[in-house]
Amino acid sequence: MSIYKDLKQECYEANMQLNALGLVVYTFGNVSAVDRKKQVFAIKPSGVPYEDLKPEDMVILDFDNNIIEGTLRPSSDTKTHAYLYKNWNDIGGIAHTHALYSVAWAQSQLDIPIFGTTHADHLTADIPCAPPMSDELIKGNYEHNTGIQILDCFEQKNLSHKEVEMVLIGNHGPFTWGKDAAKAVYNSKVLEVVAEMAYVTLQINPNAPRLKNSLIKKHYERKHGKNSYYGQ
Amino acid sequence: MSIYKDLKQECYEANMQLNALGLVVYTFGNVSAVDRKKQVFAIKPSGVPYEDLKPEDMVILDFDNNIIEGTLRPSSDTKTHAYLYKNWNDIGGIAHTHALYSVAWAQSQLDIPIFGTTHADHLTADIPCAPPMSDELIKGNYEHNTGIQILDCFEQKNLSHKEVEMVLIGNHGPFTWGKDAAKAVYNSKVLEVVAEMAYVTLQINPNAPRLKNSLIKKHYERKHGKNSYYGQ
Amino acid sequence: MSIYKDLKQECYEANMQLNALGLVVYTFGNVSAVDRKKQVFAIKPSGVPYEDLKPEDMVILDFDNNIIEGTLRPSSDTKTHAYLYKNWNDIGGIAHTHALYSVAWAQSQLDIPIFGTTHADHLTADIPCAPPMSDELIKGNYEHNTGIQILDCFEQKNLSHKEVEMVLIGNHGPFTWGKDAAKAVYNSKVLEVVAEMAYVTLQINPNAPRLKNSLIKKHYERKHGKNSYYGQ
Amino acid sequence: MSIYKDLKQECYEANMQLNALGLVVYTFGNVSAVDRKKQVFAIKPSGVPYEDLKPEDMVILDFDNNIIEGTLRPSSDTKTHAYLYKNWNDIGGIAHTHALYSVAWAQSQLDIPIFGTTHADHLTADIPCAPPMSDELIKGNYEHNTGIQILDCFEQKNLSHKEVEMVLIGNHGPFTWGKDAAKAVYNSKVLEVVAEMAYVTLQINPNAPRLKNSLIKKHYERKHGKNSYYGQ
Repeated sequence: MSIYKDLKQECYEANMQLNALGLVVYTFGNVSAVDRKKQVFAIKPSGVPYEDLKPEDMVILDFDNNIIEGTLRPSSDTKTHAYLYKNWNDIGGIAHTHALYSVAWAQSQLDIPIFGTTHADHLTADIPCAPPMSDELIKGNYEHNTGIQILDCFEQKNLSHKEVEMVLIGNHGPFTWGKDAAKAVYNSKVLEVVAEMAYVTLQINPNAPRLKNSLIKKHYERKHGKNSYYGQ
Repeated sequence: MSIYKDLKQECYEANMQLNALGLVVYTFGNVSAVDRKKQVFAIKPSGVPYEDLKPEDMVILDFDNNIIEGTLRPSSDTKTHAYLYKNWNDIGGIAHTHALYSVAWAQSQLDIPIFGTTHADHLTADIPCAPPMSDELIKGNYEHNTGIQILDCFEQKNLSHKEVEMVLIGNHGPFTWGKDAAKAVYNSKVLEVVAEMAYVTLQINPNAPRLKNSLIKKHYERKHGKNSYYGQ
Repeated sequence: MSIYKDLKQECYEANMQLNALGLVVYTFGNVSAVDRKKQVFAIKPSGVPYEDLKPEDMVILDFDNNIIEGTLRPSSDTKTHAYLYKNWNDIGGIAHTHALYSVAWAQSQLDIPIFGTTHADHLTADIPCAPPMSDELIKGNYEHNTGIQILDCFEQKNLSHKEVEMVLIGNHGPFTWGKDAAKAVYNSKVLEVVAEMAYVTLQINPNAPRLKNSLIKKHYERKHGKNSYYGQ
Repeated sequence: MSIYKDLKQECYEANMQLNALGLVVYTFGNVSAVDRKKQVFAIKPSGVPYEDLKPEDMVILDFDNNIIEGTLRPSSDTKTHAYLYKNWNDIGGIAHTHALYSVAWAQSQLDIPIFGTTHADHLTADIPCAPPMSDELIKGNYEHNTGIQILDCFEQKNLSHKEVEMVLIGNHGPFTWGKDAAKAVYNSKVLEVVAEMAYVTLQINPNAPRLKNSLIKKHYERKHGKNSYYGQ
């Protein structure tokens, strides 16, 4: 029996959850889960329909993209996952979707403004949209460089990946992460919900103001202050 | 056996209905039900997924937020419910959601104009949006002060909570109420339907007129006049 | 056994279909079916949830709104149905909904332009929106006068109710009809689909042109010409 | 037993899939499948509800629209299918729908801009919208001429039907094709998804830029370059 059985199971369940939440059409999405002790991660294979997917189909790779176990081809976004696991050693799972409203904001190349408390209950910053990749990076190792693009974006916007567990890749779509694969999937759903709320808000009132600073601070403290009481 | 068994059951069923009506994602919503004789209310516990929720999980509190019965943490919005029960002694249930179109109007910080009869069959005023809380109130007892914010809004707009059983909290989302918890949930659904209709109406015709006064009066009388015949 | 059993069954099935097609929330809709020989029609009772509805609940009335058989209160829109049956002696069923996109156009007080062949396969005119009722009519027999409002609209726009089996009542919502109750329900669904298509079309291209006359004529002839071959 | 049994089965399954994917209302859509050796294709009959459809109902025709086998009337769009099979001898299946967002773009008479990688993973050009048919063609053999309209559009825009497996007919809706009927249906779903993403993108940012050329080239090469690794 595989020593990665539990990791594959976690990864499989998170991928099935992504589908159950209505975040994917066909196979346009993938989730991975990491085992920090073994220095490997499990990821969905490429192109297998969700109804045929089985836990043992998950592919095990190390952080340099070497396949450790598995006979199927790993997701075409695998190198992006590997890059994030290698550079952010405190995340436990990553999810990627082409969900409608997240993609529409990514194609709009705009950060999602923090318009309300649904957003502020999860993060107290605008959801960042990384600008399209430079032509030089595009010519290179594309999916690996998507990882670079994400880290560059967080550096330039001075964001912490512990506080902001989601990003939009301009022209592409969202990546989300968290302490485990289930949390990464949860964040993909939250992002999609917040993206749709912000979209409708702007249609109703193109001049809708961002949440005011006192409310942003309050929500940050509800979660992080010494008397924090929310979301625990 | 708990003396609050029936109250918990009413509260449980109303919460499950909120979910069945598609008004909540994850646990972003809550309903409470009051027992005026016993001077307590039941409310959904915080963070328990709907598929795991049981009637006995409901938490019983008095109107000063003291837990009377229950081992789980009550919803983080509990103080808002308590404040409304304490000040409006004729309401029997309260519902709160983060439903998409209701939230989008709340984030837009605009009242929902009365555009048609679907709206007028339920209330003959614009659906009020309370402006964001003052910085002073934010610093204080946040969820308690949300109750103050609602009563202030009704006072300033000269509205009766018996006629208008719903409100939007700017930047946050809707609260609705009614004679019992089921009616509060019904009002949450009506609000969401009317909010979406008003949104699409404005996209088609940004200059769509409000319902004219003669029609507003007619609908008011169908419900309240001495020969009332609607909705009974 | 009731001599209206078959009529009630037809009416019941059409009402259940209205719900199954996603055109109603709660009880916001109704369908009737007529028996021209017996000079009566069957209509849904008021306020009964769809899951509790039974064929024998349908109320039988004559065209002057006298209840012939039935113990429940007929739909509050009954007088509108009666007026249409009395004045258009070749229709067999009528449906009324508060479906989202149909209502949004009605609230916008705009005809739905004929933008494409989905529309033209069913009618070759804009879908008419009757302007809001005059203040004088509102003060009178409201639901009866909604029938007058519909006929006035068709006269002023020079439309035939045989060609155009649907109308929007400004500020209210759609009425549709047809050779029987099932066809009336079918037309309610077609109207909702066409209303949503026209809405999205205008969002993408606010200057989208109406279908050109040669195409309108072609579609009319496909259905009505001597070599008609469509929709039969 | 029919010598076309397998062809009818393929065609039936693709039509049922079109419905299962939510791309059709009532009977507003059709799929065909071709047998190049026998020089015939199977297509859905006209007007039969999906719940009643059976594999043996599929109609077999040659490329000149002669019915070879079948007792039901073939889809009213049959001549368009025949024309495409006759002129593009390397396609194996064709699908036609009146899906919402595809139709809305067709009614808008605009090509769908390539805004992101969901689009670029499938085709690296804007999705073409054929302008409305000339009045002369409309007067003639309408459905046959729709085929001419499609080929004219591809010639004028200098597109390859092997690269771009989809088209919008102005004022009408989408046609898609592929190596078999299942792939044609897949392309109808991809088109609908991409059409909705582009619609929402433009609502959020009316000035959203097309995908830059370096990214378009990269995605083309991922699929077609000598080291292609995507979608295989």
